[in-house]
Amino acid sequence: MAAVVKICNQYSVPFIARGSGTGLSGGALPSEDSVLIVTSLMRQILSVDLDNQRIIVQPGVINSWVTQTVSGAGFYYAPDPSSQIICSIGGNVAENSGGVHCLKYGVTTNHVLGLKIVTPEGEIVDLGGQIPESPGYDLTGIFVGSEGTLGIATEITLRILKSAESICVLLADFTSVEAAGATVSDIISAGIIPGGMEMMDNVSINAVEDVVATNCYPRDATAILLVEIDGLEVEVAVNKQRVIDICKQNGARSVTSASDPEMRLKLWKGRKAAFAAAGHLSPDYYVQDGVIPRTQLPYVLQEIEVLSQKFGYPIANVFHAGDGNLHPLILFDNAIPGALEKVEELGGEILKLCVRVGGSISGEHGIGADKKCYMPDMFSDADLETMQWVRQVFNPQGLANPGKIFPTPRTCGEAANVANHKQLEGVERF
Amino acid sequence: MAAVVKICNQYSVPFIARGSGTGLSGGALPSEDSVLIVTSLMRQILSVDLDNQRIIVQPGVINSWVTQTVSGAGFYYAPDPSSQIICSIGGNVAENSGGVHCLKYGVTTNHVLGLKIVTPEGEIVDLGGQIPESPGYDLTGIFVGSEGTLGIATEITLRILKSAESICVLLADFTSVEAAGATVSDIISAGIIPGGMEMMDNVSINAVEDVVATNCYPRDATAILLVEIDGLEVEVAVNKQRVIDICKQNGARSVTSASDPEMRLKLWKGRKAAFAAAGHLSPDYYVQDGVIPRTQLPYVLQEIEVLSQKFGYPIANVFHAGDGNLHPLILFDNAIPGALEKVEELGGEILKLCVRVGGSISGEHGIGADKKCYMPDMFSDADLETMQWVRQVFNPQGLANPGKIFPTPRTCGEAANVANHKQLEGVERF
Repeated sequence: MAAVVKICNQYSVPFIARGSGTGLSGGALPSEDSVLIVTSLMRQILSVDLDNQRIIVQPGVINSWVTQTVSGAGFYYAPDPSSQIICSIGGNVAENSGGVHCLKYGVTTNHVLGLKIVTPEGEIVDLGGQIPESPGYDLTGIFVGSEGTLGIATEITLRILKSAESICVLLADFTSVEAAGATVSDIISAGIIPGGMEMMDNVSINAVEDVVATNCYPRDATAILLVEIDGLEVEVAVNKQRVIDICKQNGARSVTSASDPEMRLKLWKGRKAAFAAAGHLSPDYYVQDGVIPRTQLPYVLQEIEVLSQKFGYPIANVFHAGDGNLHPLILFDNAIPGALEKVEELGGEILKLCVRVGGSISGEHGIGADKKCYMPDMFSDADLETMQWVRQVFNPQGLANPGKIFPTPRTCGEAANVANHKQLEGVERF
Repeated sequence: MAAVVKICNQYSVPFIARGSGTGLSGGALPSEDSVLIVTSLMRQILSVDLDNQRIIVQPGVINSWVTQTVSGAGFYYAPDPSSQIICSIGGNVAENSGGVHCLKYGVTTNHVLGLKIVTPEGEIVDLGGQIPESPGYDLTGIFVGSEGTLGIATEITLRILKSAESICVLLADFTSVEAAGATVSDIISAGIIPGGMEMMDNVSINAVEDVVATNCYPRDATAILLVEIDGLEVEVAVNKQRVIDICKQNGARSVTSASDPEMRLKLWKGRKAAFAAAGHLSPDYYVQDGVIPRTQLPYVLQEIEVLSQKFGYPIANVFHAGDGNLHPLILFDNAIPGALEKVEELGGEILKLCVRVGGSISGEHGIGADKKCYMPDMFSDADLETMQWVRQVFNPQGLANPGKIFPTPRTCGEAANVANHKQLEGVERF
């Protein structure tokens, strides 16, 4: 990897690291003049240390393999993107991926202890270590989520967790989005942190029932909540009853519960298939990823409906309700000229809405190529400039994944970077 | 704050932010030619948002005030350094402070959502936001723990947690350090994450009994473990029994348990007073802070004893056993010429031992002025250089807390930084 990157530097050729290529913001999208460095064959699990709850993997290792490797011993790897059976850990690190279980257990950055990286200039550097906190600047933290712009990880030390003794999944059926939203807030306010807490709207419910026929999702519900509760058996029993009570107090028509693995999988099946099912609703769809403060859920869903009407495109809503991470799926037909542009505009309006209520333009899919134009909606010039300075430290020639994250870097800016780097080289080592 | 920093820049005068000045690695130690910017009067709590579990404070706010502000509503702030009734949140952010409860809940960086900072050049920049994850580079993460070298925080958005329904503290009495260490590993391996898990050795036990007379700590124990279990009442009941069983299986002579607040405080009192009590054992003591993988506990404690004998200074051991964060207290008399130098050397040997077994030279006290000379034991030249590049991005003139974290920056290096900055200014904004 270092040798390849060094050659790219020698000839000033941009390069882009790519794992499985499942990213949803185009972070691993190649440009015409660049070398694509694909990590798919770097699939070794380098070490497993159960006593200290850590595992070292190469970047091409598939997310779900990590859990498969340690599950026999009663452990698992928490971040679980929907694409977990195909996406790579290297890509997860680049995009700081989330998943259903990140409400309770945190996103990728909370599970990366250390990294061996190849810098954009081809040097091999170790970041972090084998223990959760490392002194000095948190370079591991800044690398995770930097979308390939600060280098390429070649070894990743992950934290693994002990599997819960007991797991229960609840499905609550609501006749209003407001009631479902209020339930989410009430559960968290009660001090219960579910393993996962997902909401799906009526469009999504019917889409998945059409496609995967769970026969568990009520087709006439305005919204359903899926709540996973994990922990000790006694703890799950108590929290299950508390969640059921809160759902009922908020007007849930029914609450289905599943404790055995088979039934739990069945309840999750619809949610996991939701994106795929949306493909059956219309020829194309555009998935957006934004975050809002939990308390703003009902208002934001209302506003998304207003935008949907205004633009004339139906929107299916599937999202990580517990941490306010929305995934509106805008349904459209790309064969109709101009549709894509309008849909992108609609997606942008949703992101701006998220920022307006104090949220974020990305929850777990990254900025990539898709959302860089919305960065100024969230960050001031000074904020973006500070990030660019950091980028320049790692990536002085601008060769590592150029044109991602930051809005339109200018050619002259890139050229200036090269010139500056020559100056910076004069600083002594310490 | 921005105006003061700008004036410092105008005259190229170094400046150092300081909160309560309780740091243990000298991070807020002024140099002769510098301006000390003391944040003690910036003590306002700016906003409390219980629904979204966050609070915005000024940097001079005392750590324990945060919990006091929200405890009536059933919330608390998790990081709890021993100095929590006097140390400031700004200082906690600078040093990425830990505490007893960080085993389960993480250190300061896991609880800072966003920051308003004054950069070392006097610009006001917002990092992060009001929600846990923000897109782009994680500048909040790199700022937390940067010990004042990347700027001064003026507003800090903290995550607050819901208080546990039930808390129980156990005190287990062991006749060997190995048995206590094995108990720690077994508890974690069983999938139990205690709210806190602390170990004290015989020297510490007797020191605190002499001073605060808890009358609960067995004076003839070789080591005691204090284990706090929190959660739902049913969960605490089950885990309490499991922990007691594990202690007994590892040969604990007795296990005392406390559930009512008064008795819990009594069990914690000795631990909380341990540093102060060490001051009664000898005229002076030097507290070290290192981290080791949990499984290395018995070996490392043995080696510390060997070093203690070799150098001829007794060492009291008090530490966060759950996360392998050691606090050896080296007892000595500073009035004896040469003693301090030998004690510092002994402290250094302990840090090198930590690194040798795969640990770290700092758990929660930072590097500051005290430990910068050990950074090369843990980090390669390339690692340190990368950190220095990042420092230079924020702190091009090197005026913000110079001479901390990094080993001996040379005057010519600092001068080169200034020259380079002039060049960097040529890069366009985006």
